[in-house]
Amino acid sequence: MPIPRRLVLATRNPGKVREILRICADWGVEWVTHEDAPWPDVPETGTTYLENAAAKAMAVAAALGLPAIADDSGIEVDALGGGPGVHSARFAGEDASDERNLRMLVERIATVDPGRRTGRYRCLAACAWPEGMGVWAEATCEGTLILEPRGSGGFGYDPIFIPTGEMRTMAELAAEEKDAISHRGRAFRGLRDALRR
Amino acid sequence: MPIPRRLVLATRNPGKVREILRICADWGVEWVTHEDAPWPDVPETGTTYLENAAAKAMAVAAALGLPAIADDSGIEVDALGGGPGVHSARFAGEDASDERNLRMLVERIATVDPGRRTGRYRCLAACAWPEGMGVWAEATCEGTLILEPRGSGGFGYDPIFIPTGEMRTMAELAAEEKDAISHRGRAFRGLRDALRR
Repeated sequence: MPIPRRLVLATRNPGKVREILRICADWGVEWVTHEDAPWPDVPETGTTYLENAAAKAMAVAAALGLPAIADDSGIEVDALGGGPGVHSARFAGEDASDERNLRMLVERIATVDPGRRTGRYRCLAACAWPEGMGVWAEATCEGTLILEPRGSGGFGYDPIFIPTGEMRTMAELAAEEKDAISHRGRAFRGLRDALRR
Repeated sequence: MPIPRRLVLATRNPGKVREILRICADWGVEWVTHEDAPWPDVPETGTTYLENAAAKAMAVAAALGLPAIADDSGIEVDALGGGPGVHSARFAGEDASDERNLRMLVERIATVDPGRRTGRYRCLAACAWPEGMGVWAEATCEGTLILEPRGSGGFGYDPIFIPTGEMRTMAELAAEEKDAISHRGRAFRGLRDALRR
């Protein structure tokens, strides 16, 4: 499938909207947002990133009759058996703020040996068409976690996540530095490559 | 993504293998089957067709380092609230035969008014690459159900499913007639179109 000319950005998370528009700035797409064309709520009840991202993209594409992209992402901490994973956005409860989720994760890893505070961010980006077709791409960003938040960029768990090869947290990186190595940057570039081939 | 030259057919269901090879005969693909390169079992634990099909295609692609396709399909009976749906292959229990599943469905719809024995077959076909990308396509075939099985073609619930516009059951159609209208034929042609564009 080619990159659509008009594409619904099927997320209302302001951090995601900002990053996706930035990462996909060179796609040459006319974006349709929730302000342009409100869609019904799609609950995130899936057990996998693909199910959540694809279900949202499919539901919004069907509702608006236009191709739609969505992502689902999470942080996977090795000492927590890969958690919170798909539950990252609701780790401290439904509608929990980024800050509360982050504090919850810091509490959980406080007693973990610093050398074992490893993990990764994972992002699955999906594009769905109203005709029933779709394309997905998944990517990760490996790193380590710290207990003292640093930096004001990004969102989510960025202030306690140091990507492998970096000294700074994801929240201390400039936007273009984050996009170059982040799970979301890689996933959406993978999606673009899959669509363009 | 283009149609891969070598492609793993990630299913061991003989009925599916036969149909997919037939439907995709013009793809110009060198097929790799379970006999050529055995892969580890992938449990079908998802709650959606996409999750099951994509999980299987992704797991097999990762295990063999080659692109892989899989499908998940089911029959959705309106009088059963859309069931058995994703549970169609296990309707009468884990590892139940086609015949036992079919008998179970006949029992469940026996008391339903004949005019309300409507439903559809649904198929979701997915192709996944080891690099984390994938493409899917979904399609349906509307029809009505009967209580007396007829015909020996196809598999699954074919002997009690009459596609809309037909007088014969799916199991009474010639193979090329079935493929032209079936959920699986439509889904794999949708997948081919998505890959070729």
